[in-house]
Amino acid sequence: MSLVLLAPDRNMQPWKEALLNIDPNLDVEIWPGVSNSEKVQYVVAWNQPKQVLNSYPNLKAVSSLGAGADHLLKDDSLPEDIPICRVVSPSLVSQMKEYVLNAVLNYQRNTHMYAMQKVKGIWEPHPNKSPEEFTIGIMGLGELGRPTATYLAQLEYRVSGWSKSVKNIENVETYSGKEELESFLTGCCLLICMLPLTEETEGILDLDTFKKLKRPGYLINVARGEHLVEEDLIYALDKEWMEGALLDVFSKEPLPESHAFWNREKIMITPHVSSLTPPEEVAPQIVDNYKRALSGMDLKHKVDREKGY
Amino acid sequence: MSLVLLAPDRNMQPWKEALLNIDPNLDVEIWPGVSNSEKVQYVVAWNQPKQVLNSYPNLKAVSSLGAGADHLLKDDSLPEDIPICRVVSPSLVSQMKEYVLNAVLNYQRNTHMYAMQKVKGIWEPHPNKSPEEFTIGIMGLGELGRPTATYLAQLEYRVSGWSKSVKNIENVETYSGKEELESFLTGCCLLICMLPLTEETEGILDLDTFKKLKRPGYLINVARGEHLVEEDLIYALDKEWMEGALLDVFSKEPLPESHAFWNREKIMITPHVSSLTPPEEVAPQIVDNYKRALSGMDLKHKVDREKGY
Repeated sequence: MSLVLLAPDRNMQPWKEALLNIDPNLDVEIWPGVSNSEKVQYVVAWNQPKQVLNSYPNLKAVSSLGAGADHLLKDDSLPEDIPICRVVSPSLVSQMKEYVLNAVLNYQRNTHMYAMQKVKGIWEPHPNKSPEEFTIGIMGLGELGRPTATYLAQLEYRVSGWSKSVKNIENVETYSGKEELESFLTGCCLLICMLPLTEETEGILDLDTFKKLKRPGYLINVARGEHLVEEDLIYALDKEWMEGALLDVFSKEPLPESHAFWNREKIMITPHVSSLTPPEEVAPQIVDNYKRALSGMDLKHKVDREKGY
Repeated sequence: MSLVLLAPDRNMQPWKEALLNIDPNLDVEIWPGVSNSEKVQYVVAWNQPKQVLNSYPNLKAVSSLGAGADHLLKDDSLPEDIPICRVVSPSLVSQMKEYVLNAVLNYQRNTHMYAMQKVKGIWEPHPNKSPEEFTIGIMGLGELGRPTATYLAQLEYRVSGWSKSVKNIENVETYSGKEELESFLTGCCLLICMLPLTEETEGILDLDTFKKLKRPGYLINVARGEHLVEEDLIYALDKEWMEGALLDVFSKEPLPESHAFWNREKIMITPHVSSLTPPEEVAPQIVDNYKRALSGMDLKHKVDREKGY
């Protein structure tokens, strides 16, 4: 019996080592180096290719490599009776706060413009944006959005937030529901998407949204690629309603080589790294659930296929 | 009589507007658009070309556009009897803290690697560095270095500092003098230079220094270009003793198009923007000193040519 690490766009060697540190007798293989499909009983997966999860006839359970499990829920090749679990990492929140603060500072200090100028050998200063000059608008005030809003407000940024239901957060101007979306959007220029992906929020980052932002607007998306209508972002950038965007998530990951975003100077891309699960931190959970799956016990941090999380 | 704004690598239009906002009757000209050299009585200068300051026979005084005045002190074309002043801006400290925090976060989150990958269409995640994994070493604990060290320590980074004389700063491990330089350097990997430029500190960022850092080291220079021995940085990067550098200052600014730094992927360049003097904030000082110079009064914030500041 073996445990397979299936994450084509990640370096999985540190994960293998973290698992073997806990139990040196584990049989851990990194996909595609699977010696015998019939021996595979547990898979830890992230952005897995289609038609792989149905190739292990003795699969007992599958775990996400991170907190989200969308990639497993929408994979038709995963048999419906196979239980899905995820990993829970306390450092995901602190990493997300750090990523967003970094993104805000890069917006203020024109980092991406200077990176592009560096490549071309151009020396050209641009004015810095001081924190009094803009309002940050955070969409989604849940497990990640709320602590991020609080953190930025503590650092004396002007922060507003929007969520489905009413929320109260110290020093953050909050808005809720569809009827307050417009007031929220017209008050901010730096929009940060931290929403869960649901039928209601899919495609919410569209031309209507971009039009309403204070100009020029700027978008940071750290939620899911499906929140964004990609052609609308390009349109808003070309119209100069928006001055730029930083995207960490995409509807298809890795972002295909031929995608139009790669050639757009105003769009900055990071490869889904806002929160990376640290292998050492969650390896014990993976080993625990692996042994539970083998012995037929209930999994911890199990994902409800109906609810979607 | 006229006041000339002489800063070839900056957009001086906002400066002209800020000065005219204070006194609409001022005759302000932006170099090289000077109508009559004989009318020029006051110059505000930054990175001015050589042999310009000696072309105004009726010059009464010259002001730096920023806090530093090296560019004026080392300009042989400025007659020795012309007094020099500088501007004092409280926001310079907060801007510097912000720039350095941004630089530290970009180091942690591989921002410059992702910017280079973006240009090439490469999707490749790299591990984030958490604050526990590295020590920040700040060289120079003066007007800018000390508040920056305090700020980073408050944000729970591990910070050490080195200065000429003994300093005590809460939650910062401090070192002083030549005899403690080695202990300071061997304890940190992220080195930030915030020293004043003196005979003792010129060229302090050399191979000896880079060799002693924890590997791989990283350099941030926000002080002066002359602190750095440029070929030593390239050597240390090629040897992989250092993983990268962010440089905001250069011995010649603008950095010449033919300079080797432009083509080095591991070197990030910003065009001397760590602290930009805000025109609105210092325009009153400039107008005040202009009127003082015209009426033969002593200048405020006058630079002592002997001391060099």
